[in-house]
Amino acid sequence: MMGRYRLLLSYDGSAYCGWQVQNNGLSIQGLVQEHLAVLLRQNCHVTGSGRTDAGVHAKAQVAHFDGPEDLDLRRIHISLNALLPSDIRVLSIERAPEDFHARYSAKRKLYCYSLCLGKVQSPFLRRYSLHHPRKLQLDRMDEACALLLGTHDFTSFANSAHEGSAAINAVRTLYRCEIERQNDRAFIYFEGNGFLYKMVRNLVGSLLEVGLDKKTVADFKAALEAQDRKASGPTAPATGLCLERVDYP
Amino acid sequence: MMGRYRLLLSYDGSAYCGWQVQNNGLSIQGLVQEHLAVLLRQNCHVTGSGRTDAGVHAKAQVAHFDGPEDLDLRRIHISLNALLPSDIRVLSIERAPEDFHARYSAKRKLYCYSLCLGKVQSPFLRRYSLHHPRKLQLDRMDEACALLLGTHDFTSFANSAHEGSAAINAVRTLYRCEIERQNDRAFIYFEGNGFLYKMVRNLVGSLLEVGLDKKTVADFKAALEAQDRKASGPTAPATGLCLERVDYP
Repeated sequence: MMGRYRLLLSYDGSAYCGWQVQNNGLSIQGLVQEHLAVLLRQNCHVTGSGRTDAGVHAKAQVAHFDGPEDLDLRRIHISLNALLPSDIRVLSIERAPEDFHARYSAKRKLYCYSLCLGKVQSPFLRRYSLHHPRKLQLDRMDEACALLLGTHDFTSFANSAHEGSAAINAVRTLYRCEIERQNDRAFIYFEGNGFLYKMVRNLVGSLLEVGLDKKTVADFKAALEAQDRKASGPTAPATGLCLERVDYP
Repeated sequence: MMGRYRLLLSYDGSAYCGWQVQNNGLSIQGLVQEHLAVLLRQNCHVTGSGRTDAGVHAKAQVAHFDGPEDLDLRRIHISLNALLPSDIRVLSIERAPEDFHARYSAKRKLYCYSLCLGKVQSPFLRRYSLHHPRKLQLDRMDEACALLLGTHDFTSFANSAHEGSAAINAVRTLYRCEIERQNDRAFIYFEGNGFLYKMVRNLVGSLLEVGLDKKTVADFKAALEAQDRKASGPTAPATGLCLERVDYP
């Protein structure tokens, strides 16, 4: 008999091509699958709540896999962490209902984009924060954030994962979009029912344009309403982005 | 005319053989000297407040160098950070009195040794904290810390930098030695008028033995009084150690 298991993972994405298995580098999914296969003595597919891009971090990514029903979870947990590099940690592993699906059952996700606004960025933040010493009008960025709350078509902030891929439903709901200040740092929180490919980094890129006075809040609103990726700003670097939490019913 | 300049530096020591120039790897001192020489167009010797070992970090290391009296410090600061890798940052650079000496003028130093006591260590802490999942009797470690306060001969906790080097004066004064708890983390602070080679890491190694009940507080006291390195415990790994601050009159 097989059973379903739920993993809670934390990783520093700096060294990886992202969550998903790719041809061009080490992936978090790939390493977890590889080591689980050794421990379970069978091939193992690990499904994440969603992809994170190259260089993007996760404090609490959720994933599931199917394996023998009688797994010694304490042993698997310890062994998996012993096999994995220290920049990927399994925080917990537990039995899940058969109908639990890391991606389809997810109700909300919280991302945080970290900025260092000081003249010099601490070396301890260099992998986890975007250094942005140019003065930002954070109050205008707050106004733009407020426009994103609620349900919108976010086509303007979505990259297509593959050239020529079919149009997808780009309607998503944001429950929270706000900037927290803390000394010379700023944290932009995005909580929503789902996120499109590169959506958070594209939103941050456009918010930074507003903060730099390159675009007005009205321009930002028009870009959202245009439902056209070409109407919005650049993609912010991966380094500041972290998947903070995934919520399930 | 020449002038003396004071540098405040922060670095992630993970990639370096330590502060001091060595034959066997990249050093922080070496990189700062090399880039300063380019900017000043003359050889430049940078003197730190003290060495930090391979893998040891600094939030605020102080150093000095001599250079032309009319340096454009704003330009040098920006250029030096542009040339240095992002794991070494110059926080400030300023003119200092001719008699300022980063090492000899230093009055106090504060080190912090970070521990993660949880079952799993966050991947974001892996370079900045020692993972110590085995249960520690922190209260006994507190007692041992209290014994270190004041003026002692710390020979038992000093490695000799070179085999057969002459005996040095090992009397130092500790003003603060205490453990702060914060969820599953612990921070051991050591503030003193100076520290011997590997002294903090040797103290931490012996404190951990007390915490693990391998040694009693009385054993720890006896080791201190023995004035013999062989009487004390192992050297704790560099990864948890950070030079927090250097104070001058």
